Amino acid sequence: MKLVRYGMKGAEKPGLIDADGILRDLSHHLSDITGVTLDDHTLGRIARIDPADLYPVEDEVRFGAPLARIGHFIAIGLNYADHAEESGMPIPAEPVVFSKAPSCVTGPDDDIAYHAGITKLDWEVELAVVIGRRAWQVDEADALSHVAGYTICNDISERAWQLEGTGQWIKGKSAPGFGPLGPWLVTTEELDNPQTLDLWLDVNGERMQAGNTVTMIFPVAEIISYLSRQMSLEPGDVITTGTPPGVGMGMSPQKYLKPGDTMKLGIEGLGEQRQRIVPAG
Amino acid sequence: MKLVRYGMKGAEKPGLIDADGILRDLSHHLSDITGVTLDDHTLGRIARIDPADLYPVEDEVRFGAPLARIGHFIAIGLNYADHAEESGMPIPAEPVVFSKAPSCVTGPDDDIAYHAGITKLDWEVELAVVIGRRAWQVDEADALSHVAGYTICNDISERAWQLEGTGQWIKGKSAPGFGPLGPWLVTTEELDNPQTLDLWLDVNGERMQAGNTVTMIFPVAEIISYLSRQMSLEPGDVITTGTPPGVGMGMSPQKYLKPGDTMKLGIEGLGEQRQRIVPAG
Repeated sequence: MKLVRYGMKGAEKPGLIDADGILRDLSHHLSDITGVTLDDHTLGRIARIDPADLYPVEDEVRFGAPLARIGHFIAIGLNYADHAEESGMPIPAEPVVFSKAPSCVTGPDDDIAYHAGITKLDWEVELAVVIGRRAWQVDEADALSHVAGYTICNDISERAWQLEGTGQWIKGKSAPGFGPLGPWLVTTEELDNPQTLDLWLDVNGERMQAGNTVTMIFPVAEIISYLSRQMSLEPGDVITTGTPPGVGMGMSPQKYLKPGDTMKLGIEGLGEQRQRIVPAG
Repeated sequence: MKLVRYGMKGAEKPGLIDADGILRDLSHHLSDITGVTLDDHTLGRIARIDPADLYPVEDEVRFGAPLARIGHFIAIGLNYADHAEESGMPIPAEPVVFSKAPSCVTGPDDDIAYHAGITKLDWEVELAVVIGRRAWQVDEADALSHVAGYTICNDISERAWQLEGTGQWIKGKSAPGFGPLGPWLVTTEELDNPQTLDLWLDVNGERMQAGNTVTMIFPVAEIISYLSRQMSLEPGDVITTGTPPGVGMGMSPQKYLKPGDTMKLGIEGLGEQRQRIVPAG
């Protein structure tokens, strides 16, 4: 299934995208899409609905992040060997883990404000994993059974805040707008293998990133198993799994986003996002 | 006011501690204590209740963390000059920021499991700040008006996971049990100045940490203002503000917790916590 949340920011309704690409309303069947509603029972109940029985939404609508009330927003760094290289950092021996503030989450096509103090704004197309069932000390073989589904994350980064100040990366990963998610939360019965997906990102129509999740250093199952030995993963937690090469910081000369720039990005089977950088309001 | 959550883990009820130290039930007035219920209107409504009208709870009860559904659990590192020194790290020029998984939160007196893989388990008594009102790009002068109240955090740390692996500190700060909060959430009308509080921690009856929040490098108002320029702080977010000297890692030889050890810790006006380290179940 392709689950979505659509409508005005803060008042999104749940919906799904049917086999013909038509948005259909789920709000009579589900209050919202959250960690609480991602359990197997609820997903099974939704899967048994005939989409033709759901009211089609024919207007042009905004999509929100396909998950509300995100719990822990975990990110994996340097998870594609070529990206580690372009960042001038060694290929990690185990996953590099940081986090993003949950308050940075926005819809897949929302404008991104160029906040006060920003100087080195960068892009990162990533496969994001949504946890559906608690995972604590799970083996790799069992890890994917804890996943509810997958979506796209643009792991927006202010590199000066991330890397030039004191301490940890979280500072440059967390501003409002830095976590576009969506458009769809694709559940695991539709996407069971997350390691064969093309992903790409364009800035102003020019291809910047192109890769495939097959080249991840640590595949999704290994990431979940690894994390689950250091922290429990809870329903509604999101793990964004790192970016392939082609970020602005890695270019020579470096290239950063400015107001007026547009990003378009996508992952095979998970749809597309499009964001404009706008002056801070 | 001293707000609490009491009862079995996962089924806590809201309550308050009255002027005579008696626990009184608030569950007829409030569903739970969360980011959503910490707004000025609700806190004002609770403050107008005469505690004598609330049912007293006379049984011995367990206290949970005084806040449910914590959003972002942010932590400040090396915020007391002497602790930076004992950690062998420079005094930071700006706050060091990392995060803890929200799933690490437990009650103030709950046992802490010695999980598989732990080798260097350490303690850190800290003043924790609970956000009551959204803070984004706020000035220091206004910052404390975004605080709902204060509580104690024992920022439990597995030093090998924090410092000896690849990447960021979050790995050693996030396991289940690593975030005891409570016993009380003391609201700002009762505690308006967070920078004059004695704090201390004993292990097996021996005083390990003793300090006062007056010696923080970055006081609470500065931390909130600083963070609010990099991420929006939301109601229900918790910021734990760093620890004074006396952690196990800073001793010579280093001293780490083992099953059977007991910690007792407190902050002036915020009550006391007591945790036992127990073998993983």
